[in-house]
Amino acid sequence: MDVVHAEDTRTRLLGTALRLFTEHGVEGTSLQMIADALGVTKAAVYYHFKTKAEITESVAEPVLRELEGIVDDARAQRTRGAQIDHLLDGFVDLVVRHRALVALFSSDPGIARAVEKSVHSSESFKNRLLEVLVGPDPDLTAIVTAQVLLAGIAIAGGSPEVAPLDDETLRETLLGVGRKLYNRPRRRT
Amino acid sequence: MDVVHAEDTRTRLLGTALRLFTEHGVEGTSLQMIADALGVTKAAVYYHFKTKAEITESVAEPVLRELEGIVDDARAQRTRGAQIDHLLDGFVDLVVRHRALVALFSSDPGIARAVEKSVHSSESFKNRLLEVLVGPDPDLTAIVTAQVLLAGIAIAGGSPEVAPLDDETLRETLLGVGRKLYNRPRRRT
Repeated sequence: MDVVHAEDTRTRLLGTALRLFTEHGVEGTSLQMIADALGVTKAAVYYHFKTKAEITESVAEPVLRELEGIVDDARAQRTRGAQIDHLLDGFVDLVVRHRALVALFSSDPGIARAVEKSVHSSESFKNRLLEVLVGPDPDLTAIVTAQVLLAGIAIAGGSPEVAPLDDETLRETLLGVGRKLYNRPRRRT
Repeated sequence: MDVVHAEDTRTRLLGTALRLFTEHGVEGTSLQMIADALGVTKAAVYYHFKTKAEITESVAEPVLRELEGIVDDARAQRTRGAQIDHLLDGFVDLVVRHRALVALFSSDPGIARAVEKSVHSSESFKNRLLEVLVGPDPDLTAIVTAQVLLAGIAIAGGSPEVAPLDDETLRETLLGVGRKLYNRPRRRT
């Protein structure tokens, strides 16, 4: 198996795994099912991943890395307002583009455990994410507001009710909710 | 076993089951563990519930019935504003009083399945709940806002970060977020 081909198979494998996880849950999906859906042997799956846990981590990892980048970029903005805008824009965009995975995050403990494991220092990352929204000296309302916002956007964005919406419409709608909670003006487009 | 004693055991059993579900997940909790924690025999547990599924349903059921009552009362209010106020007050209060169970709803597919089963016509109930918030002729923003609000309040209210808050403080804080999203004035106390 040459390297380019292997890379291609790996990408297809992760896409197929995500689809099967969404349909059957992580628990209900076997390596054999993934192999069958791809039309390859179980040995071909093993070439890339030894366990299902490795697959769930690899499915979640790029999205989490992207989120870390958004948080870092947001923290680098010079005003509180710009930091909040950057995080809202980035977080909503991430949720919308990865709706299927986000829905899975919110409903399946298998992938939730994979996320915990991927975000190595997950507690400190979560704190950095919250800190962008709540500022350096937050009161209680700020902390609870941030949690309602992040959880609400993630769950609503991954819910079956909004599945028919195209990305742009869902993005603008979720952003509208976030901006309202944070008293941010509508984005200059 | 006399009836009063049996009723008492049933109530204690459900409380103990909820605590064990919270600690170990529904999957990770056995009838034997519940019996041991109660200091009774497994036969005593079987006297009340034949399966773990019956227990999860019975844990969830009173809270769901209470939520149905809140939705009905809200719909009976005469103005849209009063309907929204009633639903926000009732929903937040329910989440706060049943934090442990709500946290479990949001994170454990075992109890989520029990909820689906308990709410017999769950689709129509969910629609009636949403309809109070979005009104009879909702636009997209209204629907997404309602979903962000309900999911966000449930998740934030059950999150470990807010566990140290007393009920009254958490209730007022979550209500503040909800009122802001719905442009409702602060409650007259």
